[in-house]
Amino acid sequence: MDVKAYMADVGQQARVASRVIGKTGTGIKNTALLAMADAIDASRDALIAANHLDLESGRKNGLEPALLDRLELTPAGINGMIEGLHQVAKLPDPVGTITDLTYQPSGIQVGKMRVPLGVVGIIYESRPNVTVEAASLCLKSGNATILRGGSEAINSNQAIAICINQGLEKAGLPKGVVQIIETTDRAAVGELITMPEYVDVIIPRGGKGLIERISNDAKVPVIKHLDGNCHVYIDSAADKEKAINIAINAKTQRYGTCNTMETLLIAEPIAAELLPLLAEQYRAKAVELRGCAKTCAIISDAIPATEEDWGTEYLAPILAIKVVADIDEAMDHINQYSSEHTETIVTENYSLAQRFLREVDSSSVMVNASTRFADGFEYGLGAEIGISTDKLHARGPVGLEGLTTQKYIVLGDGHIRT
Amino acid sequence: MDVKAYMADVGQQARVASRVIGKTGTGIKNTALLAMADAIDASRDALIAANHLDLESGRKNGLEPALLDRLELTPAGINGMIEGLHQVAKLPDPVGTITDLTYQPSGIQVGKMRVPLGVVGIIYESRPNVTVEAASLCLKSGNATILRGGSEAINSNQAIAICINQGLEKAGLPKGVVQIIETTDRAAVGELITMPEYVDVIIPRGGKGLIERISNDAKVPVIKHLDGNCHVYIDSAADKEKAINIAINAKTQRYGTCNTMETLLIAEPIAAELLPLLAEQYRAKAVELRGCAKTCAIISDAIPATEEDWGTEYLAPILAIKVVADIDEAMDHINQYSSEHTETIVTENYSLAQRFLREVDSSSVMVNASTRFADGFEYGLGAEIGISTDKLHARGPVGLEGLTTQKYIVLGDGHIRT
Repeated sequence: MDVKAYMADVGQQARVASRVIGKTGTGIKNTALLAMADAIDASRDALIAANHLDLESGRKNGLEPALLDRLELTPAGINGMIEGLHQVAKLPDPVGTITDLTYQPSGIQVGKMRVPLGVVGIIYESRPNVTVEAASLCLKSGNATILRGGSEAINSNQAIAICINQGLEKAGLPKGVVQIIETTDRAAVGELITMPEYVDVIIPRGGKGLIERISNDAKVPVIKHLDGNCHVYIDSAADKEKAINIAINAKTQRYGTCNTMETLLIAEPIAAELLPLLAEQYRAKAVELRGCAKTCAIISDAIPATEEDWGTEYLAPILAIKVVADIDEAMDHINQYSSEHTETIVTENYSLAQRFLREVDSSSVMVNASTRFADGFEYGLGAEIGISTDKLHARGPVGLEGLTTQKYIVLGDGHIRT
Repeated sequence: MDVKAYMADVGQQARVASRVIGKTGTGIKNTALLAMADAIDASRDALIAANHLDLESGRKNGLEPALLDRLELTPAGINGMIEGLHQVAKLPDPVGTITDLTYQPSGIQVGKMRVPLGVVGIIYESRPNVTVEAASLCLKSGNATILRGGSEAINSNQAIAICINQGLEKAGLPKGVVQIIETTDRAAVGELITMPEYVDVIIPRGGKGLIERISNDAKVPVIKHLDGNCHVYIDSAADKEKAINIAINAKTQRYGTCNTMETLLIAEPIAAELLPLLAEQYRAKAVELRGCAKTCAIISDAIPATEEDWGTEYLAPILAIKVVADIDEAMDHINQYSSEHTETIVTENYSLAQRFLREVDSSSVMVNASTRFADGFEYGLGAEIGISTDKLHARGPVGLEGLTTQKYIVLGDGHIRT
């Protein structure tokens, strides 16, 4: 297979299809989404059979249990895909929304219209549910999509592709609206991220290594999510009960998510009182504690933290703890080590809360709430394609709106410039 | 001079200063802008003397007259710089604006806060007025700036730098808020665009070659403006007087601007009636006409257009003209050849106007108005740092808002996720 030629063809089809889906009305897009859901429902056996092929060769190739787990398509997982398609169909369509249409002194009306990005390329790991999720969000936001899932999921993804195509066909939309790359050749990724003539944006989902590699090599804008080294700062004016609840929830509600707290900062005046109470609860949940010297003086079984700990996203039951003098030292620490994902202050002090909100430079900044809330569903976006740690375009959870952009529209009545 | 070490130092200072200016209130920022204006007013002689040095060596080095013209700092030009600073001081400050703060089912409030981008690097040609313009817009939007002007303007820019520093000092702001690169070594540009740890975004202003080179080599997001190959489509349902006024204004009001029409598309049913009237006016203004076969059959002195003409931004009194069957052929032509800057339809037909607005994929899409309106001032932005032909982040004229981004803020009262 000539991967270069194949990808150029995929790109060209996507570009042509993007012009069609970009002007397709909400009703037809919803018809396609619901028809995909029906096709998936009618293809349960075929999907599970294809997934078994992937699981078998995954086991043969010694895939780690965690990866096999993500790869597996269970009946409940298929229900989730169908449910997801119904949810996206119910979301409001952002395309065509006109805002800020105002008259200017010259007499023209100037406003902004929300429009699709065009062609979105998505590169992700071997999680078949992402195929449906990404395709549905891009379609609803009027974009053509090129999906490149992990090679271990190739059979599952091809089976899903059949269902997606049936949905597109039923709605009278061209195949090019959603294309799932048919080759597992890695060169396909290299092509996908270097075709600015066909692809408007790349969204990589996966480990930090993958995302850094793609960002470095891409000749197309990338909406990326690097790591989530999130902080909770317990201020000396914190309500103690709120502080304990938030610090426990932010770390232990789930360990493997990007919005989990990785470092706890605590103001010195209340450290001696609160840290032992927190340590007791963390111990009960088998969370390993690594602390600065002051922390270790209070929590005797804490392991001394190294410089590396402050910059680490553990994604595991491990927590770094640092005692700080005040909000300034806390924000300095965050500025130095944070991955600019999500940070929380726990305080009852109005002025300090305002300062934290304004001065902390992260995609989500919170007061008296668990970092675990940093999520498209919790923020009311309806769904999310990822969480951006970039500053430009989309920052934080990215929903349908993040998959669109705005153009200016000008309405005149024969106006000329003088 | 060790350019790498120098630029790393500039970058580091900018990063530190960005944290200061990012939280500086509107009043202090305005104080700095007005103090810069005063310093420029008090330094007229020094500025003109420095500029003379640049003009002299420019003439010695055989700089083209048009470039010498842009390089020259006249008393009127200095007035313009002062006036510009006063205008930017009067603009509303976008930083800190909170929008969409709404309660979610969990009880948390989620909203968006507008925040500076951080450090903005600006690379531009030898136009000293851009130094003041760019510095003032970045400062007002809470960013630290690193400015790299054309080497031919080095003395003028260093003289301006003194005034800018005086303004910063008067407002108690660190020097790192606005830094003007002191070396003319081209390696400085290479460093500036590859320091993602210090620079958040690069805005190149200048010729297409410069911008393409920077976009290719940058390891930092670029807000760029490539060419402006703008179209006017005169529909068969056009009001003839509006059509003629717009087609003449869009081409001839100024030839060298990016929002000038370069190709006129006209519907066949009215071509025979309108083209001769238009040709007469264009002829009177010495505009060279290059037409498709049908155009040449109507306008006998039009030169046959080649394929290359459809893709060219002339920036000169030359116009390409094509007769098309209808709006579909017009939009196909635009989709194929446009640089996605600005396109206008002239029509009285409601449905066709709506289709054009929705389906044309350019940064500005207009109905019954001259393309020359595509401009930050005309759009009410107060000022513009450039016009983006990118799709992500900022599209079209970029004002203060385009120099900021939004982060999520979450207000809770001890909320945890369950």
